[in-house]
Amino acid sequence: MSLHLRAHSTTIRPHCKEVTIISETWTLDDIATPSLLINLDVVEANLTRMADSLHSRHIALRPHVKTHKSVDLARLQRALGADGITVATIGEAEVFVAAGFDDLFLALPLWTTPRVAAKLDRLSKLAKLRIGVDSLRGAQALATQLRAPAELEIMIEIDSGQHRTGTQPDQAGELAAGCQSLGLRVVGVFTHGGHSYAGADAVKRAAADEMAALEIASSSLHAHGVEAKVLSAGSSPTVDNLGGTVTEARPGTYIFNDRQQVALGAATPDQLAAVVATRVISTAVPGQFVIDAGSKALTAERSALLDGFGAIIELDGAIVTRLSEHHGVVTYQGTPPQEGTLLHVIPNHICTVVNLYDHFEVSRSGQTSDSITIDARGHLT
Amino acid sequence: MSLHLRAHSTTIRPHCKEVTIISETWTLDDIATPSLLINLDVVEANLTRMADSLHSRHIALRPHVKTHKSVDLARLQRALGADGITVATIGEAEVFVAAGFDDLFLALPLWTTPRVAAKLDRLSKLAKLRIGVDSLRGAQALATQLRAPAELEIMIEIDSGQHRTGTQPDQAGELAAGCQSLGLRVVGVFTHGGHSYAGADAVKRAAADEMAALEIASSSLHAHGVEAKVLSAGSSPTVDNLGGTVTEARPGTYIFNDRQQVALGAATPDQLAAVVATRVISTAVPGQFVIDAGSKALTAERSALLDGFGAIIELDGAIVTRLSEHHGVVTYQGTPPQEGTLLHVIPNHICTVVNLYDHFEVSRSGQTSDSITIDARGHLT
Repeated sequence: MSLHLRAHSTTIRPHCKEVTIISETWTLDDIATPSLLINLDVVEANLTRMADSLHSRHIALRPHVKTHKSVDLARLQRALGADGITVATIGEAEVFVAAGFDDLFLALPLWTTPRVAAKLDRLSKLAKLRIGVDSLRGAQALATQLRAPAELEIMIEIDSGQHRTGTQPDQAGELAAGCQSLGLRVVGVFTHGGHSYAGADAVKRAAADEMAALEIASSSLHAHGVEAKVLSAGSSPTVDNLGGTVTEARPGTYIFNDRQQVALGAATPDQLAAVVATRVISTAVPGQFVIDAGSKALTAERSALLDGFGAIIELDGAIVTRLSEHHGVVTYQGTPPQEGTLLHVIPNHICTVVNLYDHFEVSRSGQTSDSITIDARGHLT
Repeated sequence: MSLHLRAHSTTIRPHCKEVTIISETWTLDDIATPSLLINLDVVEANLTRMADSLHSRHIALRPHVKTHKSVDLARLQRALGADGITVATIGEAEVFVAAGFDDLFLALPLWTTPRVAAKLDRLSKLAKLRIGVDSLRGAQALATQLRAPAELEIMIEIDSGQHRTGTQPDQAGELAAGCQSLGLRVVGVFTHGGHSYAGADAVKRAAADEMAALEIASSSLHAHGVEAKVLSAGSSPTVDNLGGTVTEARPGTYIFNDRQQVALGAATPDQLAAVVATRVISTAVPGQFVIDAGSKALTAERSALLDGFGAIIELDGAIVTRLSEHHGVVTYQGTPPQEGTLLHVIPNHICTVVNLYDHFEVSRSGQTSDSITIDARGHLT
């Protein structure tokens, strides 16, 4: 499989603005399509930049591995400055603990069934494991079901404005005290400023909300006699704006970036590290062409900031406008590319796209290709 | 793991109408969530009904296995009357041929790279394999790359109104003659009346379009000296309205049905065979609760006919209104169910949901549970 380098210029057209993409990409001549390609040079640059940026602000980097679900890439993150990892499911925790990771934060208020408790008990013997709590009932389930509740470290989740999960910041202390009285060990507070995804204008405000909420929550814990040694914030968009008393950030998407991160101003086009390779399979219907990447290759995820389901790198302004499971329809008024043409799509949201694949096809500028397993793909529970 | 039966009544609220769901469902006490549950009694009833209905109209049933991607379920379809299967990718074809299926239709105008050609050559020795063509260029790639092009059976794809792929019906003969002159063997014409998904009003018209287009295409082939022995139509919504000269139908979703099929009038609520089991993980934010099924468990697929990303069976009118990867936010004005409550979600579109899981949790009314592997999950190429 030979490797060619080409420079492409593409325009992404979100509703509100235009972003010009200029990125080097690759052609793997007989690559199976649809496939998920990553450029490891860009990945490494993204990882190093984030670690350096956070460390210069004395903030620890605990990347969310739900984005890539890959042991090899988590090892790369660790080698390039990550301080522990964040996971979303017990299944992810199992994969990464089995691979030797020993400092994990399961950043969700998971419900503790007997099955979950058995796994948490086992994992917390093998690694330092933190878990989120946002209700006294959730804390009671943990305390009741676990054999060794004090082995776990509890993080109180607070709502800094996304209004998804998390207790109010000024009520965090009461919940933390409740956890402690159940025999649980609270070590800090965390939040996810997901309202940053409303648009580029929202990013700075969301970061400020995260910092303010964590500070209020920390004071609330202190007032209840609990010290928060960890103040954990962060989404990929807000992380550049964090500072103050924040001790840790948990970005995920920054390893690859995607069309949405570029639209938010959280990444530049040359920081895009992942694309879906696809081929044109039909030009039969006028005014469009069809690629072999549909909703099972790109997801059907939309963004309020973006038109369609992905941007074609090679064709200025070409957007995947309609999806079937194995067809992507690209509205296109010019002469369509011929059947068989290899194209590359920048997905809207890379995290859910990665979850559709078993491995990444990997390239470096000027080197031959390789493959990296997506070890925790589908580990949903 | 014990099994309980409960009767639930739920209302699905699409934009245009309300559909009342009354279905028996199951509670697997310590089931891991999110999980994909199917009721095998309902599956078998769906399979038998479709086979009987089509056979009474002298139409062969070639179910699309992309919906379930499971060897066990394809065997069940065969045992209950299916005449061959339809697949969407080479990877799916490989899985089902390896499992002994010997009559497959790859219903796409796939692009033939050297890699694809090698696989098609191998598969066409092991099974009767049909493949779609909608361009002369695509036919040329097949004829050039294959070692044994005459082993394959070619189906000309025509556009009956979905405007996705397929040549115009009256041009099918010219394309078929072109294929024959390249040494390919054309056996019929096919179409997918996907414009049926526009709404319940569109279903009958789309079925009529399919029948009319196939008849025109068949005549066009005849005029060019090619006999179409197969006239293949069908999507799950249109299949009940097929007749005339149609020889074969290719429904997929009918095995499980989903929220969209019910909204289209193509299934009744008691024909829903698949749900996602989930638990409440947070009630911290007023006016809503959060379940552990997000976009990696439900997909982010929307339908113009439906609000949100899925309906909660147990709670009348409760819809998943917002998704993160591991969170589903359910807007809910009443007293929310407590953290830990087990709920079941009817997905919008079951085919893409199945592709997220490695296995089905299986139940029958009154029997203990089992598991069925989703063998071809992620076989995208």
